[in-house]
Amino acid sequence: MPETLSDIGEFGLIERIDALLKREGKRTPEVTIGIGDDCAAFQPRAGHEILVTCDVMVEGRHYLAKFISPLDLGRRAMTLNISDIGAMGGIPRYALVSLGLRRDMWVEDVEAIYLGFVEALNPFHAVIIGGNITRSDGANFIDITLIGEIKSGTSVRRSTARPGDAILATGYPGEAAAGLQILLAGGSAHGWEDHPLVRAYNRPSHRAVEGAAVARSGLATAMIDISDGLLGDLGHICDASGVGARLVHENLPISPALREWAAQLKKDPLDFVLGDSDDYELIITCPPEHIKDIRSVISALGPVPVSAIGEITSPLKGAGNIQVTSTNGISRSLSRSGWNHFAR
Amino acid sequence: MPETLSDIGEFGLIERIDALLKREGKRTPEVTIGIGDDCAAFQPRAGHEILVTCDVMVEGRHYLAKFISPLDLGRRAMTLNISDIGAMGGIPRYALVSLGLRRDMWVEDVEAIYLGFVEALNPFHAVIIGGNITRSDGANFIDITLIGEIKSGTSVRRSTARPGDAILATGYPGEAAAGLQILLAGGSAHGWEDHPLVRAYNRPSHRAVEGAAVARSGLATAMIDISDGLLGDLGHICDASGVGARLVHENLPISPALREWAAQLKKDPLDFVLGDSDDYELIITCPPEHIKDIRSVISALGPVPVSAIGEITSPLKGAGNIQVTSTNGISRSLSRSGWNHFAR
Repeated sequence: MPETLSDIGEFGLIERIDALLKREGKRTPEVTIGIGDDCAAFQPRAGHEILVTCDVMVEGRHYLAKFISPLDLGRRAMTLNISDIGAMGGIPRYALVSLGLRRDMWVEDVEAIYLGFVEALNPFHAVIIGGNITRSDGANFIDITLIGEIKSGTSVRRSTARPGDAILATGYPGEAAAGLQILLAGGSAHGWEDHPLVRAYNRPSHRAVEGAAVARSGLATAMIDISDGLLGDLGHICDASGVGARLVHENLPISPALREWAAQLKKDPLDFVLGDSDDYELIITCPPEHIKDIRSVISALGPVPVSAIGEITSPLKGAGNIQVTSTNGISRSLSRSGWNHFAR
Repeated sequence: MPETLSDIGEFGLIERIDALLKREGKRTPEVTIGIGDDCAAFQPRAGHEILVTCDVMVEGRHYLAKFISPLDLGRRAMTLNISDIGAMGGIPRYALVSLGLRRDMWVEDVEAIYLGFVEALNPFHAVIIGGNITRSDGANFIDITLIGEIKSGTSVRRSTARPGDAILATGYPGEAAAGLQILLAGGSAHGWEDHPLVRAYNRPSHRAVEGAAVARSGLATAMIDISDGLLGDLGHICDASGVGARLVHENLPISPALREWAAQLKKDPLDFVLGDSDDYELIITCPPEHIKDIRSVISALGPVPVSAIGEITSPLKGAGNIQVTSTNGISRSLSRSGWNHFAR
């Protein structure tokens, strides 16, 4: 029988995690006090601002253990925080992790979760500098605070899009939502782990390197990562910037995998592209004359598609403040769904 | 009927909390991006290190709603993080708060929790710059990350106590544990709210102002706050510093309230002074010739008692590495209990 947390106790678990972090994690000279004191401490870089984000994932609400391996869960939880830092244009540096865990959890699963954290952080030489582990008698939860740095004054906000700006999106929003549908229909991840849409859900990419490059370029007017779906997050830009948006139906990116799966199931792939989905892609707005340069900045880093999907407008009438126009001239106003965790 | 979270939804709640923070919280010019974007951002102070701590409180494990009001719960949750920053010698500046809440929670109770956070932060002009609220179908939980600043190189560690150092303790450790006993015996806080020991548990002080002054003085060799009890936290100093400790029985501080309550119940008050207790007092070590000056530094800030309770030694034999010696010459070795959240 594998060991459980109640076999080795809290202090035993902390020792195992410390050893794992020493073995697998990076080191950073700016950390002046690591894990093991009342606080961790680091020396901030001169000329930089500190960025901070946090996100909590509760089992049963934000993930189901039967759909995702512990390694992928850890990687995904850290990825979504890295995505937030990257969507401002920053570089992730230091993480704090709070876990609430049932005592019947297997130790090796907790270690795998941490390994997932470390695998997501290592490419940035970012390190876990603190956190705590507590027993939860209800659902497991993971709460991560991620601290990043960015050259002072270069953050790209969501509140600074302007009418006339082009709207760009990286990657293929909606793939993660389709992957979740596949898991829900199948009842487990078994046999589906390598389906490209399931991988998009369980092993999402972030675009933090791309986001940082876009911020450095100074070419974008606004940026946000996609965690509430393309419409939801474009809606956040519209609300915060006091603008509207018009999308071009034919320009919305549909991946081959999503198109094929949707055709098989007689679903409209655009429902996934536009709707709730945790893709951790970027929405970027910029003056139209900068589209080409932003594409160059991103393509210099790797093969990430960038689609010009529409334009920022003055505020539009209608609940959603976003329209989709087809090249055949038909427009429809879209209502955003967005998550509402407490809704009945 | 008061409103519940499911009546107003996640976005409704966030609006209410934003309004509360704007109304009741302070503002800080160093915050360059507040709540409402992918990340918050602040400009760190030149010549300072950043301190970070986080602590999670799970209902049913770390608190019971019937024992503590929402306002006190918020204040207490923030106080224990402030205490950690203060125990390094730092000043709290920025907080992120993650809440997991059942949807039958009353909105006014959530607002009261936030008001408690703000009341604890305001004396430092510290501000909440981010966080998230999610639905929990199990227990409510509160996870706070608190960020502080300290002049570079002046943190007081737990790992730097030296044999021959005196051991000082502020206040009256053990009062909080006795207060918890009173609540457990009574079954609720009703009628006990103003008992001094119950207040010590529900409305603990922190010694962050004192800790910062001690760090500035440069007189201490090590410092820690008491969240695992006097023995538990002194044990952390001993482990981290590779030393032992000898306490003087007669010098251990017993408050009049604890002495009276223990006498009534025929309990040994020292079991509470030494045992598990969340008092958020400080243990400070220093060369004996600095005791007087540290007392002066602390007494200049207010009427906080400081007791010289023993001395740091070379490592001692025996499981606990800490002895208590009476003036009559009798010594006993102490075993630390310490919390172990996963133990059966």
